[in-house]
Amino acid sequence: MTRRIHVIGIGAGDPDYVTAQAVTALNDTRVFFAMDKGEAKDDLVALRRLICARFIREPGYRFHEMPDPPRNRVAADSPAYRRAVADWHDARARLWAKAIASELGPDDAGAFLAWGDPSLYDSTLRILDRVAEHVDIDYDVIPGITAIQALTARHRIPLNDVGEPVLITTGRQLRGNGLTGSAVVMLDADCSFEGCPPETRIWWGAYLGTPDELLFSGTVAEVGARIVAARADARARHGWIMDTYLLRSAD
Amino acid sequence: MTRRIHVIGIGAGDPDYVTAQAVTALNDTRVFFAMDKGEAKDDLVALRRLICARFIREPGYRFHEMPDPPRNRVAADSPAYRRAVADWHDARARLWAKAIASELGPDDAGAFLAWGDPSLYDSTLRILDRVAEHVDIDYDVIPGITAIQALTARHRIPLNDVGEPVLITTGRQLRGNGLTGSAVVMLDADCSFEGCPPETRIWWGAYLGTPDELLFSGTVAEVGARIVAARADARARHGWIMDTYLLRSAD
Repeated sequence: MTRRIHVIGIGAGDPDYVTAQAVTALNDTRVFFAMDKGEAKDDLVALRRLICARFIREPGYRFHEMPDPPRNRVAADSPAYRRAVADWHDARARLWAKAIASELGPDDAGAFLAWGDPSLYDSTLRILDRVAEHVDIDYDVIPGITAIQALTARHRIPLNDVGEPVLITTGRQLRGNGLTGSAVVMLDADCSFEGCPPETRIWWGAYLGTPDELLFSGTVAEVGARIVAARADARARHGWIMDTYLLRSAD
Repeated sequence: MTRRIHVIGIGAGDPDYVTAQAVTALNDTRVFFAMDKGEAKDDLVALRRLICARFIREPGYRFHEMPDPPRNRVAADSPAYRRAVADWHDARARLWAKAIASELGPDDAGAFLAWGDPSLYDSTLRILDRVAEHVDIDYDVIPGITAIQALTARHRIPLNDVGEPVLITTGRQLRGNGLTGSAVVMLDADCSFEGCPPETRIWWGAYLGTPDELLFSGTVAEVGARIVAARADARARHGWIMDTYLLRSAD
């Protein structure tokens, strides 16, 4: 018996980012598999439930919450990092396989909802690859609006300069490699833009597409310190923050 | 009098990529401004009209086609390239300003539909910036599913390796700078992946999300020649092609 699974990108915050394709997949889903996501949990769970309530026409679905296996926390620049991530993906895959086998009937489709797009800094697809070693599944992937697109839309700016490349990267990589041209930085808890030359231009956004949205733009010299303060303040208030930013070097 | 304009990303080929936010903006629009886009015109115009017909509830809208000013074709690596692009944007901006002023009534909203997302290798936002020098406009930007997301979704792959960066680039840039790590290549009429080491992995797609979709994956050695042949064949058959691909270096 092959279980059908949808991996659905639900966009980066605004329920209106949901696509027609995602709506069809939501309506085809009997069981939504979900995990504890730490501090951001309450708000993310609320958004997930809001999206389901708004776009699903017949309420025959249910959520199945799965505990998240403990993660061996290793510094991302340590040689043990990839191993720790792989072990954690394996542990998740075993848990997911068990849940899929026990919760889905022969004609049911299950789904995993991914914040933004399932292909961008998200482990769902990697874990499902391993789930397939334990249980027979067939999955499709439904793209969603990423935080990058929410950022450029809300700032009303192009991502790239004419004919020029853009790097999608992380705070850690930015700190290690510096900035050349244009870069979007994700997963940066450390305001790594502070290490860039002061004339670097930055377009920053947090809680994009939500009523709590914050936007700043200018040079790092002009707005860097204000972003650091606003970020710390918002993080304290909400208990979590998701932010991203575009940098363009001045030269 | 301020004219309202929506810049609407309609996604990269599949009408089901349209978001709820885009549907709202489509329904708010009286006049869709559109330009001749050369060879791909007929298919793109058909997709645009199909999306409007499917998602707009009351057919009170109309299309206003604008001629595209002649473009001074200069090689992208020539020093005159940026100037030629800027001149062409200026010429377009003057045309657009005139059309917006004459076609939109005081309470009407106009819209420009962008293939994929308006922020990615698209000139609409740059031109609207210049339109604002000629006519009073207020515009918002509605993000759309890009060809990059369609590509990774259809191949069911992550865009990035765990914690690693991804470069979004062009065929010309790839030829000039070579490949490091992962890169998505857009706007490549020359199959520039052929210059990569044979063990480079490639995930290629054309006409993504449409019934004509083509997908290939493997190493450049395994599938490179097949992609070149399939691309030439499809291009001849359709009269145009839109393709994109993800590369990962083997090391």
